[in-house]
Amino acid sequence: MKALAEKLGNVLVMQKKTVATAESCTGGMIAKVITDIPGSSRYFMGSVVSYSNDVKIKVLRVSRALIERHGAVSSQVAVAMARGVQRLTHADCTVAVTGIAGPDGGTAKKPVGLVYIAVANGTDIEVKKFNFQKDRDGNRKDTTKAALQMLIKTLNQQA
Amino acid sequence: MKALAEKLGNVLVMQKKTVATAESCTGGMIAKVITDIPGSSRYFMGSVVSYSNDVKIKVLRVSRALIERHGAVSSQVAVAMARGVQRLTHADCTVAVTGIAGPDGGTAKKPVGLVYIAVANGTDIEVKKFNFQKDRDGNRKDTTKAALQMLIKTLNQQA
Repeated sequence: MKALAEKLGNVLVMQKKTVATAESCTGGMIAKVITDIPGSSRYFMGSVVSYSNDVKIKVLRVSRALIERHGAVSSQVAVAMARGVQRLTHADCTVAVTGIAGPDGGTAKKPVGLVYIAVANGTDIEVKKFNFQKDRDGNRKDTTKAALQMLIKTLNQQA
Repeated sequence: MKALAEKLGNVLVMQKKTVATAESCTGGMIAKVITDIPGSSRYFMGSVVSYSNDVKIKVLRVSRALIERHGAVSSQVAVAMARGVQRLTHADCTVAVTGIAGPDGGTAKKPVGLVYIAVANGTDIEVKKFNFQKDRDGNRKDTTKAALQMLIKTLNQQA
């Protein structure tokens, strides 16, 4: 995990870009891992951990109707969270995650381990669906890893 | 650390209270540790990781003048961050931390390991100064531990 965070840091420094995160199921783990790296204040702006829907709506300005229509764990909400934190922090690229870490909260349609990750880079945006099928700790770690990998891939593609 | 987060969770559930964090030097670690606990969505609203001053000012509404007068690492800014995240999330109690994790950023007056932690509980607020004198990882972990302990103590005093 530390190697991935270092790699992301190197790419951001090289490209002179900044990053921010909007996190639901990871609860701040992505921000924590990024800031484990000394000197990360050069490229890390901050994070909004929107664990409750209220924080998604009031802080990240995700529309309540969007959450009611698609559910908080949906590609649409992941995209809105990524755009929301981009607007708030003016970071060049942002990553947003929303999912069901478990052990509770899963349903037949949205099982534990279901996670949507959105990466915004300037005006571009990409969203992916994952099914990690681990326990709470494993799902959160896998989500963090996938988020860092998506950020690195996006930055490298656009270099 | 997990035991502290569980203890905090139990107190919050018993008192039917919610919590939120505003984090600078810990970079999301407090939120991560709180949400390591299954069922934490019952009492954890969210967090603002305000790593850059811009996020402190724009998201948490810490006044720019306050930061210029006292520095981002100060008791005054810790208090303003705790109040800011309380306003944003409507959590019953909040904790805010600002400090110098290291290895860089220290000065003679504000050395690496200097941390201010503010805990707001309703209209009450308390702020404490710490000097952890560890490396980056140790300073961040000690800050997280102290933040959880201050929250638990405050809640128990007011019960």
